[in-house]
Amino acid sequence: MAKEFDLISKYFTRVTPQAELGIGDDAALIKPSNAMDIAISSDMLVAGTHFFADVDPEKLGWKTLAVNVSDMAAMGALPRWATLSIALPEIDETWLSRFSKGFFACADAFNIDLIGGDTTRGPLTLNVTIMGETPHGWALKRSGANVDDEIWVSGTLGDAAFALAAMQNRIILTGEELNICRAALEQPQPRVELGLALRNIATSAIDISDGLLADLGHVLKASGVGAKIHLNQIPRSEIVSHHLQQEQAISMIVAGGDDYELCFTAPKNQHDAIDKLSQKLALRLSCIGNITSTPSLILHGKDDEIMNIKETGFDHFA
Amino acid sequence: MAKEFDLISKYFTRVTPQAELGIGDDAALIKPSNAMDIAISSDMLVAGTHFFADVDPEKLGWKTLAVNVSDMAAMGALPRWATLSIALPEIDETWLSRFSKGFFACADAFNIDLIGGDTTRGPLTLNVTIMGETPHGWALKRSGANVDDEIWVSGTLGDAAFALAAMQNRIILTGEELNICRAALEQPQPRVELGLALRNIATSAIDISDGLLADLGHVLKASGVGAKIHLNQIPRSEIVSHHLQQEQAISMIVAGGDDYELCFTAPKNQHDAIDKLSQKLALRLSCIGNITSTPSLILHGKDDEIMNIKETGFDHFA
Repeated sequence: MAKEFDLISKYFTRVTPQAELGIGDDAALIKPSNAMDIAISSDMLVAGTHFFADVDPEKLGWKTLAVNVSDMAAMGALPRWATLSIALPEIDETWLSRFSKGFFACADAFNIDLIGGDTTRGPLTLNVTIMGETPHGWALKRSGANVDDEIWVSGTLGDAAFALAAMQNRIILTGEELNICRAALEQPQPRVELGLALRNIATSAIDISDGLLADLGHVLKASGVGAKIHLNQIPRSEIVSHHLQQEQAISMIVAGGDDYELCFTAPKNQHDAIDKLSQKLALRLSCIGNITSTPSLILHGKDDEIMNIKETGFDHFA
Repeated sequence: MAKEFDLISKYFTRVTPQAELGIGDDAALIKPSNAMDIAISSDMLVAGTHFFADVDPEKLGWKTLAVNVSDMAAMGALPRWATLSIALPEIDETWLSRFSKGFFACADAFNIDLIGGDTTRGPLTLNVTIMGETPHGWALKRSGANVDDEIWVSGTLGDAAFALAAMQNRIILTGEELNICRAALEQPQPRVELGLALRNIATSAIDISDGLLADLGHVLKASGVGAKIHLNQIPRSEIVSHHLQQEQAISMIVAGGDDYELCFTAPKNQHDAIDKLSQKLALRLSCIGNITSTPSLILHGKDDEIMNIKETGFDHFA
């Protein structure tokens, strides 16, 4: 049976051109660029809580890194380095081979060096710490939203929640629809390019991992403001639109997790610049409402009525 | 029942004077010092693999951070920032309160800011990523050992392995002896001051987490050299010396894990400087042998005979 050190070498050691020293010592070494702050974020994924234990390991590898890359995007940071810790019940080289393939596919897509980590025996658990760079003082914090700012969302919301609901038989989708929604759930596309472009435009940003209402709620709380948003303006895919009559469909749009789109605020005079950015990036950017001075989050329904917000997101201990 | 965000706030959010932005956003932000490299290391600890699930949470909190601080010491880096991810089967506020007390005791002892992390539901698992600083080009790597360098070890070896063996009834200790050895196992003292002082002195360094022979073996492999070491010169506590006749006692000294002392190499002409450093730090530093050009590790026994090395350390998948 392969040993820990062999596993690291076989599946996870690659050249790390962005590091002074990569995997294989007591620590990795990186040389930060001048005048840049380092942004750091950690996410832990646990089998049974965040993913099904029998999920395709290649897709899991992608997602494990992608959810962390998304945090860099939400800060307006350029992701550069990551560490990966894995606990595995037993050595399964097929699983490791496929997992590392997906992980490095994401690393390659975003030019990230895997510079360290840990492998050990235990219930299937994954932890990534990601590091990126942003010019000093330019990071997109949650606390910068101002009254009258417009609120924007990238891409479409709800597809990932639809996939999960269909896989759990809580909603009915055709096979083709499920495949499309599963891609959103299992292979999220972090919005790094958008985050970088928003450094000069947005006043705050967050990635939508726990659901729009919950994540926007964090921005409102951190900024000491409120918001009015409009259900009709929240972007959703054709599939989601097609199934809006199904029970829970609306809550999946406003409170479904795992979308990994960005929600950001910007002054009204940036509206045209954001429309142009949308064209340049070929990425839908939708204005869904405004920041208000009253510290509450109000959701207007399809006939402009005020909707009762019950489900505000996902909490791993709820 | 408390929610994830409340837990983070209640037990893990403290002021972070060394960070531009601490816990509570998509990422933390740090501003590295000029001309410093950042050293980064991650360690994952799993209940049942690395610790007993019923271990005193306060001691576990200390050790969870301390084993990572030890990696910084082994690089000659000054630890400054850490992230902590915790998976917990259920919310246990008593456990969290005690765990965070031990964790921050270690953080305070070494002036480390907890700047981020994750809390989630799952089998009890802990992951720390630690970051420190070292002047560019000055880190103590594993690859720098030169032929004829002397090999040194800090403190004493074997106490932690003795404690574990006694707790598993593989060895017999008195209650008082067990308490002393348990302190080594459960509250290791990372050798940060030593690591910093060795920047100008040592050619390589590693911390002894997997056992002397295994960890020295990593240095030899990375440096492309061999070593001769002498059992009589390997430092051990009075308790370990007193029980040397017990079965496995010698393997606990040379191959027991969890000591978190430093093993380092230095040119012979630094011998006196290291003796003086030992006095200055009030820390035992023992020369245990020499680096050789033949790429093998030879252990001389108490009558200078060559010993057969079978147990070279601890592997979590062995």
